[in-house]
Amino acid sequence: MARARWRSTTAAACATCAAALLLLCIGGFSRADAAGDSYSDLVTQAKPSHVHTEPLAVPSKTLMGPGPSTAHPRVLEAARLPLLGHLHGEFVKIMGEVQEQLRYAFQTQSRYVLAVSGTGHAAMEAAVANFVEPGDVVLVGVNGIWGERMSDLVERYMGVVVRMEKEGGKVFSGEDVERELTKEPKIKLVFLTHGESSTGTLQPLEGIGSICKKHGALFFLDTVCTLGCVPFNVDKHGVDITYSGSQKCLGAPPGASPLMVSSAAMDKLQSRKTKPFTYYFDINLLGEYWGFKDNPRWYHHTGMVSNVYALREALSILQDEGLGEAWARHREAAERLWDGLERMGLELFVEDVNERLPTVTTVKVPEGVDWKDVASHMMRKHKIEISGGLGPTAGKVWRIGIMGYNAAPQTVNRLLHALKEALDLYGGSFAKKEL
Amino acid sequence: MARARWRSTTAAACATCAAALLLLCIGGFSRADAAGDSYSDLVTQAKPSHVHTEPLAVPSKTLMGPGPSTAHPRVLEAARLPLLGHLHGEFVKIMGEVQEQLRYAFQTQSRYVLAVSGTGHAAMEAAVANFVEPGDVVLVGVNGIWGERMSDLVERYMGVVVRMEKEGGKVFSGEDVERELTKEPKIKLVFLTHGESSTGTLQPLEGIGSICKKHGALFFLDTVCTLGCVPFNVDKHGVDITYSGSQKCLGAPPGASPLMVSSAAMDKLQSRKTKPFTYYFDINLLGEYWGFKDNPRWYHHTGMVSNVYALREALSILQDEGLGEAWARHREAAERLWDGLERMGLELFVEDVNERLPTVTTVKVPEGVDWKDVASHMMRKHKIEISGGLGPTAGKVWRIGIMGYNAAPQTVNRLLHALKEALDLYGGSFAKKEL
Repeated sequence: MARARWRSTTAAACATCAAALLLLCIGGFSRADAAGDSYSDLVTQAKPSHVHTEPLAVPSKTLMGPGPSTAHPRVLEAARLPLLGHLHGEFVKIMGEVQEQLRYAFQTQSRYVLAVSGTGHAAMEAAVANFVEPGDVVLVGVNGIWGERMSDLVERYMGVVVRMEKEGGKVFSGEDVERELTKEPKIKLVFLTHGESSTGTLQPLEGIGSICKKHGALFFLDTVCTLGCVPFNVDKHGVDITYSGSQKCLGAPPGASPLMVSSAAMDKLQSRKTKPFTYYFDINLLGEYWGFKDNPRWYHHTGMVSNVYALREALSILQDEGLGEAWARHREAAERLWDGLERMGLELFVEDVNERLPTVTTVKVPEGVDWKDVASHMMRKHKIEISGGLGPTAGKVWRIGIMGYNAAPQTVNRLLHALKEALDLYGGSFAKKEL
Repeated sequence: MARARWRSTTAAACATCAAALLLLCIGGFSRADAAGDSYSDLVTQAKPSHVHTEPLAVPSKTLMGPGPSTAHPRVLEAARLPLLGHLHGEFVKIMGEVQEQLRYAFQTQSRYVLAVSGTGHAAMEAAVANFVEPGDVVLVGVNGIWGERMSDLVERYMGVVVRMEKEGGKVFSGEDVERELTKEPKIKLVFLTHGESSTGTLQPLEGIGSICKKHGALFFLDTVCTLGCVPFNVDKHGVDITYSGSQKCLGAPPGASPLMVSSAAMDKLQSRKTKPFTYYFDINLLGEYWGFKDNPRWYHHTGMVSNVYALREALSILQDEGLGEAWARHREAAERLWDGLERMGLELFVEDVNERLPTVTTVKVPEGVDWKDVASHMMRKHKIEISGGLGPTAGKVWRIGIMGYNAAPQTVNRLLHALKEALDLYGGSFAKKEL
């Protein structure tokens, strides 16, 4: 039946097509029939139980967990623009604009910036796969899940990890880093997490880049939770390698993840004795696609067209607002949140305000309260997401994200209101104490 | 100035917020001011030359190269739906639906199907990174760029490649495969490309799966250019590992790439002596996120929310149409194209019609014609993309894609008309011959 329907469509189209092509239409049938005979043999498995004839629909939520954050409506509009080929002139121009915008967001003059075709985790892996050669010694600051993850990644890529540990909620000092570099002169990379989303700490950066440089190590920084939201200047802070995500501070869908590499790091890459294991994330090859060498663009992999559109739009919004203004907006929204939480009698997990991440706030769950009851109520009743802890904070905290589109006073007020309501309902003795 | 503007916004919001929160608003200022003092020091780099205050706009093109293909409008609508969290119940349900739909598209009962967070190349790399352990011997059929790429990948992941070569435009027989497996009993994987998009061949699959099985090797197939367009049945053809892309036959944006693994392949994975180098593509961990083990979902990486929406929509369309019907539609559109090309006096690169890929047709560029002139005219005048050759066909052919949304008689007619016009203008002696 269905095949017959296709045939009639074909015939109908013929009637309207140019006369010169009429014969083709007729000629097309016989072979298709012959080829089609075996189709039924090859469809051995029935359609899924429910055939989705209706377009996909999803609820509209306010995403204030550690990410993804609510995407800006203008960004979502960009995500549905018609596809361009990943090597078309118009798309290559968009890629160039994204790079220029990323240099502004990172505050760097390095030409080596691009968007990795994957999530922040992909960009993290791209960095390790390229800059950690088997046997390379890497100092990894572990004060939450991201240091743990980095340790795992470095070992997978056959690097040697020197762990530098702090308990969750604490950050590293320049002295901490210098001590380790002095103890182990073979260290080639120093990894820290600017915004530790599992614990809510903000790693101070002052002086660390120059300590790394003095010891001949590259400064490797995770900015997944900070790029575009938190004061940061790649060139001033002496960062050599940093990656971020699109779905946090920038408010775009996950899938095109900023990566920045300094000239010094590119030199290390050129001196590798072996190809990276990865092809997909091979930065030398990606660089040819992203124009690192003014070379003609080259097909490496199919660029993430729609995700790059969305990233470009998110970066345009950031650029239009201004970086300093965006930082201030996030800081103000975070302080509004912190004050509101403290006024409710809640305690913040990171005590020192200077070490507190404005983009993901960790709040201690009061004794006797089940974090899930509160988060579930907020989702059920208000469609607001906050999340529980992760790694060292699992079960102990809520994590509240104030990123991108949601870093606005009205949104913070809405969240505080919903949280208060949930605590009144599910706060047990804590709620009573408040009354 | 800009910071002052933010302050007024904050104040304005306060006026409308709940009275109970009023004090918070006022409390929020002082700290922000203190923290903001250093912002100007950290914005050392000016905004890009052009600030994009206008939303992104792109031209609407008909993408009939080897991919991406024009996305279905309904798919693009899905891509701009509001983001859900990647572990939200609603999103996990969508993931489950995608898996069910993928089992139908692949025609498999295997539970091990998922969408890799990246392009088809990412899924290809995921397969190699997991199923090729250092030292594993892999038979790679090389009859175009994809066999070359696979050889590179296997070697990067420290596997040992046995090359089985055919010239571009030819395919492999069961005897070819059996001969190699008999010669080298250590072969653990046999890699072939179902649709060789660089040369335009369609690899026959009959019998190859059972030959692999007999010799204790896994059958590893690239279906980037065929899944959903070309008759194919994973279980009947005895395929153990196969990956595809979203931006070709399925007509979705690049970014969520189907991957299927048989139980036998999963057994090989479980018997690995070492972790894969990759974390992002580690299928054991991805399987926990995609529910391979009925386990509670676990945060591995941020799922590609919007891309999965789009893939779900594309697969819904496929499911609604029916797989056999979609195969027939592609076959009919391809035959319409082939007939049209031959009637213009053009020669197809793949002579044997049974070995010709319906989704990417390779057409010989007549002597004296510059392929670029023709392709450029079609793009300039008609916004229709066709592309040149790649690898063994570079400079020798045009590649014309008939995939997904574009596999419709009207679209093929439009392409033939535009190509005829371009050849009349830029065909030199070929055009004159035709007259």
